Amino acid sequence: MLAANSIGKAFTVTCFGESHGKCLGVVIDGCPAGLLLSEDDIQAELDKRVPPKLELTSGRVERDIVEILSGVFEGHTTGAPVCMIVLNKEAVSSEYNAIKDLPRPGHADYPAHVRYGGFNDYRGGGRFSGRITVSLVMAGAVAKKLLRIFGVEVYAYAKAIGKVKIDENVTLEQIRENTYKNPVRCPDLSCAEKMEQAIIEARSEGDSLGGIVECVALNVPAGVGDPVFDALDADIAKAIFAIPAVKGVEFGAGFSSATMRGSENNDAYAICGGKIVTLTNNAGGILGGISTGMPIVVRAAIKPTPSIPKKQKTIDLSKLDVAVLEVKGRHDPCIVPKAVSVIESTVAIVIADHMIRAGIIPRVLWRK
Amino acid sequence: MLAANSIGKAFTVTCFGESHGKCLGVVIDGCPAGLLLSEDDIQAELDKRVPPKLELTSGRVERDIVEILSGVFEGHTTGAPVCMIVLNKEAVSSEYNAIKDLPRPGHADYPAHVRYGGFNDYRGGGRFSGRITVSLVMAGAVAKKLLRIFGVEVYAYAKAIGKVKIDENVTLEQIRENTYKNPVRCPDLSCAEKMEQAIIEARSEGDSLGGIVECVALNVPAGVGDPVFDALDADIAKAIFAIPAVKGVEFGAGFSSATMRGSENNDAYAICGGKIVTLTNNAGGILGGISTGMPIVVRAAIKPTPSIPKKQKTIDLSKLDVAVLEVKGRHDPCIVPKAVSVIESTVAIVIADHMIRAGIIPRVLWRK
Amino acid sequence: MLAANSIGKAFTVTCFGESHGKCLGVVIDGCPAGLLLSEDDIQAELDKRVPPKLELTSGRVERDIVEILSGVFEGHTTGAPVCMIVLNKEAVSSEYNAIKDLPRPGHADYPAHVRYGGFNDYRGGGRFSGRITVSLVMAGAVAKKLLRIFGVEVYAYAKAIGKVKIDENVTLEQIRENTYKNPVRCPDLSCAEKMEQAIIEARSEGDSLGGIVECVALNVPAGVGDPVFDALDADIAKAIFAIPAVKGVEFGAGFSSATMRGSENNDAYAICGGKIVTLTNNAGGILGGISTGMPIVVRAAIKPTPSIPKKQKTIDLSKLDVAVLEVKGRHDPCIVPKAVSVIESTVAIVIADHMIRAGIIPRVLWRK
Amino acid sequence: MLAANSIGKAFTVTCFGESHGKCLGVVIDGCPAGLLLSEDDIQAELDKRVPPKLELTSGRVERDIVEILSGVFEGHTTGAPVCMIVLNKEAVSSEYNAIKDLPRPGHADYPAHVRYGGFNDYRGGGRFSGRITVSLVMAGAVAKKLLRIFGVEVYAYAKAIGKVKIDENVTLEQIRENTYKNPVRCPDLSCAEKMEQAIIEARSEGDSLGGIVECVALNVPAGVGDPVFDALDADIAKAIFAIPAVKGVEFGAGFSSATMRGSENNDAYAICGGKIVTLTNNAGGILGGISTGMPIVVRAAIKPTPSIPKKQKTIDLSKLDVAVLEVKGRHDPCIVPKAVSVIESTVAIVIADHMIRAGIIPRVLWRK
Repeated sequence: MLAANSIGKAFTVTCFGESHGKCLGVVIDGCPAGLLLSEDDIQAELDKRVPPKLELTSGRVERDIVEILSGVFEGHTTGAPVCMIVLNKEAVSSEYNAIKDLPRPGHADYPAHVRYGGFNDYRGGGRFSGRITVSLVMAGAVAKKLLRIFGVEVYAYAKAIGKVKIDENVTLEQIRENTYKNPVRCPDLSCAEKMEQAIIEARSEGDSLGGIVECVALNVPAGVGDPVFDALDADIAKAIFAIPAVKGVEFGAGFSSATMRGSENNDAYAICGGKIVTLTNNAGGILGGISTGMPIVVRAAIKPTPSIPKKQKTIDLSKLDVAVLEVKGRHDPCIVPKAVSVIESTVAIVIADHMIRAGIIPRVLWRK
Repeated sequence: MLAANSIGKAFTVTCFGESHGKCLGVVIDGCPAGLLLSEDDIQAELDKRVPPKLELTSGRVERDIVEILSGVFEGHTTGAPVCMIVLNKEAVSSEYNAIKDLPRPGHADYPAHVRYGGFNDYRGGGRFSGRITVSLVMAGAVAKKLLRIFGVEVYAYAKAIGKVKIDENVTLEQIRENTYKNPVRCPDLSCAEKMEQAIIEARSEGDSLGGIVECVALNVPAGVGDPVFDALDADIAKAIFAIPAVKGVEFGAGFSSATMRGSENNDAYAICGGKIVTLTNNAGGILGGISTGMPIVVRAAIKPTPSIPKKQKTIDLSKLDVAVLEVKGRHDPCIVPKAVSVIESTVAIVIADHMIRAGIIPRVLWRK
Repeated sequence: MLAANSIGKAFTVTCFGESHGKCLGVVIDGCPAGLLLSEDDIQAELDKRVPPKLELTSGRVERDIVEILSGVFEGHTTGAPVCMIVLNKEAVSSEYNAIKDLPRPGHADYPAHVRYGGFNDYRGGGRFSGRITVSLVMAGAVAKKLLRIFGVEVYAYAKAIGKVKIDENVTLEQIRENTYKNPVRCPDLSCAEKMEQAIIEARSEGDSLGGIVECVALNVPAGVGDPVFDALDADIAKAIFAIPAVKGVEFGAGFSSATMRGSENNDAYAICGGKIVTLTNNAGGILGGISTGMPIVVRAAIKPTPSIPKKQKTIDLSKLDVAVLEVKGRHDPCIVPKAVSVIESTVAIVIADHMIRAGIIPRVLWRK
Repeated sequence: MLAANSIGKAFTVTCFGESHGKCLGVVIDGCPAGLLLSEDDIQAELDKRVPPKLELTSGRVERDIVEILSGVFEGHTTGAPVCMIVLNKEAVSSEYNAIKDLPRPGHADYPAHVRYGGFNDYRGGGRFSGRITVSLVMAGAVAKKLLRIFGVEVYAYAKAIGKVKIDENVTLEQIRENTYKNPVRCPDLSCAEKMEQAIIEARSEGDSLGGIVECVALNVPAGVGDPVFDALDADIAKAIFAIPAVKGVEFGAGFSSATMRGSENNDAYAICGGKIVTLTNNAGGILGGISTGMPIVVRAAIKPTPSIPKKQKTIDLSKLDVAVLEVKGRHDPCIVPKAVSVIESTVAIVIADHMIRAGIIPRVLWRK
């Protein structure tokens, strides 16, 4: 029953809205005063959320248009809560009536029905839809703008889609240049094409694909994060698990560190250009919940879209009997491309929150 | 700077203490009144944390003895905060002086030094030691006792140590019977022996091993958990990442779901004994952040112990120059066996917290 | 910098918006699913906030029209966050430019300027305006509707305006019948007329009045509230102090208990109709932070409106020199009449929050 | 059921312990690293809590001896949680058995019984005893030491006991010199004697007295505090209401501002020594929830001790019948003298919390 739609202790993001309701929205409380911020800043990030190719997405083609409702005055944030909304324009809800008692396998329909006693807005998944990530992207746009002032850059990209994986050696330049230039958000362009093909193929078979999104945060200074429970990795993981379809999160060497020896996995310290660095980064930039100054590297496993045209076994909640379901509606055959900008936003939100907690980002950016 | 040593909104666990300080302690706020609770209950769990074989552990042989300081009256919890401590008896701190300016690779020494401006208690890792998990086990003992009243059982076990993995088909009986009967906490006994050998071998080479701990929670009713940010999986993941050495967390099919198709990964619904179930459990018992009623299945990747006798490259913080480090002290060559009871405790804490939030566990257990 | 625009742990109210910005808004997270709720419910409470007589108020005559943006589906709350806004229609901001560097005595202008480095929206007081109470009234409307289902009624009324005080013996019937039928919100109608005259007189002299608002909450069951810090009285007091112009809060006998003896002040227990009651209610319905089952009685001291036409000494922040200020704009000569519905709303919010925490209000009202 | 024994978002104080349990304790999470802190610092404040004259207090003569359990290393705070306890030595619990079913009027016995289903530790009031303020004083000792580094001083004193009130013109010198030199903690020494007599007289009649404690905080810079809900006055009020026996809290002119006109109550701005000041301080140093730079002035109404030897009407909870109660045990005939150091501590805790939130107190005091 407790407030569960908020995250962050210093840069606090509260989300609201449903897939087929009036809007999706977000309130940021704790954004420092004095940040130059316009609707264009937010719009640019919202536009990155939705890949351009229709055959890769749900076919819901509305452009999400942001409106800032509060917290900005004369072009700057005021320190008061920033509320932003995107109106839902073209939701088609009628097709959900037919299946409202037939929980879709792999979706939150059934547990949500139990949790809310049947009062939840089931249309399009309601509060459990992937569309709620619009709120995260709006908040992430503010976080990213804030972080850039302090030199921090956050980049996510598709690392794997289905069985297609990108080469380990993708460069920072590729990431910066290519990620948002292709519909699957993969910085390795030849790999991107194969990913696109894989999605089209799965779709043509009435099926869907999952994948892996990797995210790196550069230039986070050493010393950001709090032990024990508000560890930086713990908070990033929690935020990423809030994104629908995420089933795993790992940092640095992650699950592969389980099979390494200490002598392999430990990152030796060195001095480079007068700065303390590590020669490898198996830690993914975080030790003991605190940033080391090396790039933060996190990966999320995204499950295949549960809404697929193929027939599936389910139950009819109204009769408590078995049933067969054919999901209609419009659904992305793979949500990895959308998840890229969402994870980038989410990681930026958590890092901004922790850099404010650390006192590195002050509560007024520039005093007049 | 914010309070970071607390977790849980309804069953709130606040930890304190250092590896070489006076004690380790925990305060539980929000434990329902009326729970029968004695020091024996806690002691039994503390005893499970430390495997019996010295060659597998740090050689620090003190038994951790709990003392309940508050919150229990006439054998029952009162609803007031329950504070419990374990005094540290035989810490040997002198050996840490030699290396206080030499951060150990893979440890939190360096980021902690930056974060706390050098004021942190570095002895034995201080607040970043694996010993802080004593606090989690004490709190977990209370959570487990509470959960058992409502039929919920939580079991963790070593799934992999180094390159030795257990068979997928380990049964619930094996888990219940065998896990704590062998020093590596593996329910598959033949596998347990191989794991033990692997640890002994790594140790003999001055090295260490990591592994994977799996945890299952049975009989959590459907409908427990909160969207969006306080998702049950998000909160379990956050809590597990607070445990030193965890580098990855996944639920159900986890990272392997990234390569599955929707039609494979979706868990079809069925009715079994009048109850709604799924025919597979790739979701790991959680969809949309809410429990489905199926077993909750979570796995954590544990990195190899960073403290190893082998020589390692580091830097001398007092001179800002390169240095070579030989870690002395007493260190487990593999912390997976200890992590088993810690993860079991941690998962129990989060589920208890969410079952209280859900109103399933009331704030008074039985009215007189 | 921490999130400061939210209150309540179970029924969490997050406010946003400014006096002269686009809107005022509120997000309620934690409202139980299944509450019948319409815009009419909210509108009725918003209409009560603004007394009908223009000469008693700021002359800003726009009617505040609510729009529900989320959290309601098919006429019921869904359990998802309820966001509501009121658009600002007729703010006249130009007159504030002239005085933006001249902080108004008794207003937050100067400390807000320091706190936000000059980035705060100063128009009409911005985030510090009395208009922000629109958000509280919207949230209070939901809280009151929720409480009524559980038999709890909350009534506030003007107890004193300037030097005019109502008789101690006002009845519950008078409160219910008369409070909102007169522009000063006083249940004693002859007193109400004198209060109205006092306001008109102060206004004609270019001055303003304060007063006292009393609020009673009936039928709160015994046992609601939490020691130590989340005491029911502590939380009510905190919430009331968030209302602009409140300078004191007291419960039951309040400050007069300071001069009483224990034997006078203690409320003796008795049994009445099978129910445990107290023969007096000097405690104001709360002991040890927990409700006793008797009416909760709280009073707030409201200072005279700081914005007055009379000339006042201030400083010019741009020159750091003394200056003389004549406040133009539209300002209520006494805000007690508006504060009545705001305090009623605020007390309802806190009691709803604590009744959910207590498990008395469940997280789903009726299962379908 | 929610965690209710913690306060503060940046300097977070969690209390535990009961009047007749093993100990009283506190955990401070968020204390900056690098603060010189010893048990002597805490002990000095604990000693101030208990007035020296036995006839004015409960007759429970144990000296409270602090033990620091964690968070301090080599004489400085480390940034890790600071846990401190005071063992209870000479509680006599037997006399409480006789009255365990007879709730004492004016005490929390009855609502606590309902709230905790009878499982609460009723001995000496258990968690509702005035003894829990030992935890506040320990935490306050740390807060005060921290604040002094930043020039902030906090002083409380008895302003009124029963019908004896001190002269308005008490000076800062009197406050500093005299408050803790007399058993009633009144800076006006002639008044102090009268207060002492009043207490002795009430006691001799088997009765008790209340009073008013005033607290001033000097040198809090302008700009500390957060709107809307985490207003500095709101947070101070909430914390003070957590202290047993407080029935009212007011700032500056407080309740008397209700009868003032705006032109009287507004504090005109002026410049004095290059600093912006107000010519009066009716606001009590806080406007819009933010400090103005003027002294913060807050007063609390303390009710007369409810435990009195006089016979009182109550009910027998075991029979649900009326009963007559004679409270034995040891009870202060007036708790105002003890409340002085407790309120001083509490106000210091809240101001420290907000100065950390404001970034004025950094998270590391001096880097080595």
